[in-house]
Amino acid sequence: MSDQREVSPKTAYAALSDRFRRASLIGDALGILDWDQATTMPEGSADGRAEQIATLSVMRHELLVDPSVGENLQAVQGVSADSWEAANLREMQRGYAYAAAVPSDLVEAAARANTVCEIQWRQARAEGDFASLVPALQTVLGIVGEVAAARADAFSLDPYDALLDEFEAGTRVAQLEPLFGTLVRDLPGFVEDVLEHQKLRPEPVFPDGPFPVATQRALATELMEALGFDFEAGRLDISHHPFCGGAAGDVRITTRYNEENFTESLMGVLHETGHALYEAGLPEPWRYQPVGKALGMAIHESQSLLVEMQVSRSRPFLEFALPLMQAVFGGQGPAWNVENFYRLYTHVERGFIRVDADEVTYPLHVVLRYRLERALLSGDLPLADLPGAWNDGMHDLLGITPPDDSLGCLQDVHWPSGAFGYFPTYTLGAMAAAQLYGAAQRDLPNLNEDISAGRMLSLIDWLRIHVHGQGSFRTAEDLLTAATGQPLNPQIFLNHLRNRYLGDG
Amino acid sequence: MSDQREVSPKTAYAALSDRFRRASLIGDALGILDWDQATTMPEGSADGRAEQIATLSVMRHELLVDPSVGENLQAVQGVSADSWEAANLREMQRGYAYAAAVPSDLVEAAARANTVCEIQWRQARAEGDFASLVPALQTVLGIVGEVAAARADAFSLDPYDALLDEFEAGTRVAQLEPLFGTLVRDLPGFVEDVLEHQKLRPEPVFPDGPFPVATQRALATELMEALGFDFEAGRLDISHHPFCGGAAGDVRITTRYNEENFTESLMGVLHETGHALYEAGLPEPWRYQPVGKALGMAIHESQSLLVEMQVSRSRPFLEFALPLMQAVFGGQGPAWNVENFYRLYTHVERGFIRVDADEVTYPLHVVLRYRLERALLSGDLPLADLPGAWNDGMHDLLGITPPDDSLGCLQDVHWPSGAFGYFPTYTLGAMAAAQLYGAAQRDLPNLNEDISAGRMLSLIDWLRIHVHGQGSFRTAEDLLTAATGQPLNPQIFLNHLRNRYLGDG
Repeated sequence: MSDQREVSPKTAYAALSDRFRRASLIGDALGILDWDQATTMPEGSADGRAEQIATLSVMRHELLVDPSVGENLQAVQGVSADSWEAANLREMQRGYAYAAAVPSDLVEAAARANTVCEIQWRQARAEGDFASLVPALQTVLGIVGEVAAARADAFSLDPYDALLDEFEAGTRVAQLEPLFGTLVRDLPGFVEDVLEHQKLRPEPVFPDGPFPVATQRALATELMEALGFDFEAGRLDISHHPFCGGAAGDVRITTRYNEENFTESLMGVLHETGHALYEAGLPEPWRYQPVGKALGMAIHESQSLLVEMQVSRSRPFLEFALPLMQAVFGGQGPAWNVENFYRLYTHVERGFIRVDADEVTYPLHVVLRYRLERALLSGDLPLADLPGAWNDGMHDLLGITPPDDSLGCLQDVHWPSGAFGYFPTYTLGAMAAAQLYGAAQRDLPNLNEDISAGRMLSLIDWLRIHVHGQGSFRTAEDLLTAATGQPLNPQIFLNHLRNRYLGDG
Repeated sequence: MSDQREVSPKTAYAALSDRFRRASLIGDALGILDWDQATTMPEGSADGRAEQIATLSVMRHELLVDPSVGENLQAVQGVSADSWEAANLREMQRGYAYAAAVPSDLVEAAARANTVCEIQWRQARAEGDFASLVPALQTVLGIVGEVAAARADAFSLDPYDALLDEFEAGTRVAQLEPLFGTLVRDLPGFVEDVLEHQKLRPEPVFPDGPFPVATQRALATELMEALGFDFEAGRLDISHHPFCGGAAGDVRITTRYNEENFTESLMGVLHETGHALYEAGLPEPWRYQPVGKALGMAIHESQSLLVEMQVSRSRPFLEFALPLMQAVFGGQGPAWNVENFYRLYTHVERGFIRVDADEVTYPLHVVLRYRLERALLSGDLPLADLPGAWNDGMHDLLGITPPDDSLGCLQDVHWPSGAFGYFPTYTLGAMAAAQLYGAAQRDLPNLNEDISAGRMLSLIDWLRIHVHGQGSFRTAEDLLTAATGQPLNPQIFLNHLRNRYLGDG
């Protein structure tokens, strides 16, 4: 026995559990404050809200970097833990390592630089003026580089891997390179084929509006409920940028409505519902512990894309949903049949804007950003040369050249807000969605019939068991392997695209 | 010089200032969470919200009881402070003393007992079943007694004074006894006289509805704006129990609407607007410091009652507001004239329910509760005997006897939620409102003309200077003396009642 005062593993675990529970509840409070800011807060109250959010964020950070966390994580070694406790400790270790890896003043500098740059970005994008953004974005890039270096040092990773890891634990360039290599090799030609194939079909017809907001909302609510969204523990509201937020047990999604065209908002709602079902289905006994949280952004995006791309844009879903749409809107005319809606919802087009892209061209938008952000961070691409490199990349990958930077390298908020290493999760999520949905179809032989009859709950139960209810018990890779029989396999996604866009899927 | 490590007064003040700022911002976050809970939150999310609120409340309490607070308050003695800094230190000292006086486990036990009792009270009130509430209320009463004893000990006060002091600093039984003695002596006979006098006037006529909620809301918004409420830094929403809440720079009031009768909701909105204008007018440079906060509940209530009772139920205000009401509702018929609305809004009636009482009978409801809560706390009145004592008191003071306890001792949430010592602030506030409004009329000779022309801002400016902008710089007594030339004088309130209800005021 050593001379040191020993803390029993049990005491150490209880102390950690209390501390992370408290951090989790601060996170929930922050979730409500963020939601309120985006939906409800008076405009003039932004400064005060920023102070509230900064205060709670700092207090949460202080909880996690407290020296007792490291000591207790040491003391708890060898605790006889059931496997969920062991997984919880793994996630605590990760949370502590992340909080401790970067000095507090760098965290604060990053927050400030990102806020400044994001505000300037709004104007720069509106005016298509990249040059005006360069100084602020250079500062952000410099700080992101420092953060990456600090984490790389702490975790023995390459710096870009250290950034990827924040958004989805375990993601590495070594994994992305072959995945994205496959996409770059196969997708551009595939897009050509799809566009040729699409020409053989009739052009999709948009249904005639107007579509009153209250009716759109009632329809959205009905479909959300059919998917198992619980309005006793969640909400649907309006915000400028749709999101899924709120708190544990209080999951809130938002959308925006266009009275001339309901189809986009509806898919937006279904997308956010996919995120919300994940949050709502997390393992309740572990609600306030790290292991009870969702995995990273790739798995989260897999849940929204599974509901939106795999389910809601499919013929079986439209067979169920179209009569409901037609009933609430009193829709009449050539637009109102499943085949037309299917063509609307699977229309492929080369465009400049990522968030408007279809699922076929979307991965090429991601690969472009992945390549450029790596080059920016390594110093291979000077920031001033970004617009040219962007336009060249768009031309190489998608065969189109943006007429200005607002439709080019200024379109996304991610880099101005300091999020480097985030973009790949969109495409990892799309691949995971296809793979998980394939496994669900394998396990649920009547799934298509169920969906076309509006019986969604067999699918949702499958997701609860294999994804939602797992929380962070397994890593993303282990979860995918357990649910589907193999690690992430891009061919499943490509098969899905081939089937849907060149076959009759 | 002592051997102890010395902290400079400046450093100590800065540390205190940072800590209280943080506590203030946690309070703002709690304000938004409370508002959301009352207006927006899905019903099923109550447990999670309770956990969030408990966590933030505990963290705020921990900030204030940290030993460094006491040390810094010592070290800061003799700091060369301007007078606002000195007042800020006085309020810090008060906040620390309050937080430190009661052991944490007693604070927690109180919170738990109050929550349990409040839930049981809802059912007991609905069923008129006082006996079912006795065990839970006995527990609450016991804990309140312990809290009062702990504070009495720390502050060298009598226990009930220690409770009064929480809600309005400096309030003492020695001050209340003569004030309330005057009321008990004069008011019952005065009520008789008023009811006789009222018989000589025509009965007031209610305007015919329905009054759509959206129209009521538009009218409320217009009148709030006329009073200087800033919708860029505040909101008006719906909740079951009207309140004023939110955060610094984000002041949110609520109401509930009755489509058959708009007059009550409208006065409710104007009442809450009085609270809101106080919050919005607090001294901005001190926003997050104790000296920048509102004084206690008596002064707060003086601001709501000044706007509601002194201003909004007056003829000049109705001369301004009635044409607006008539325009939005298209009102026609015998109800729609100033004299009738004035009679409606100054109608006196002996009733069982405090929150429905007019300003003449209201103080008698308060005196009853003040007497009973003192007797309960001293042990002179066993809890089981409360219903009888209540009914006897109502008969003595108001000449009526409640037919059941729902209309008697079960009507208010205050005692079940642990708030003993709160009721007197309602009547102190009514008195202060009359006194402040008298001073405003003295200083602003054209006030009645301004109000009848809808020019409210001279009054609001006067309140900003003499009350709102003072924050907690002065004590309530000093503020009242500075603004009106004398400490609280119940005769001013009684003169107001005489003038309005027996004269032609």
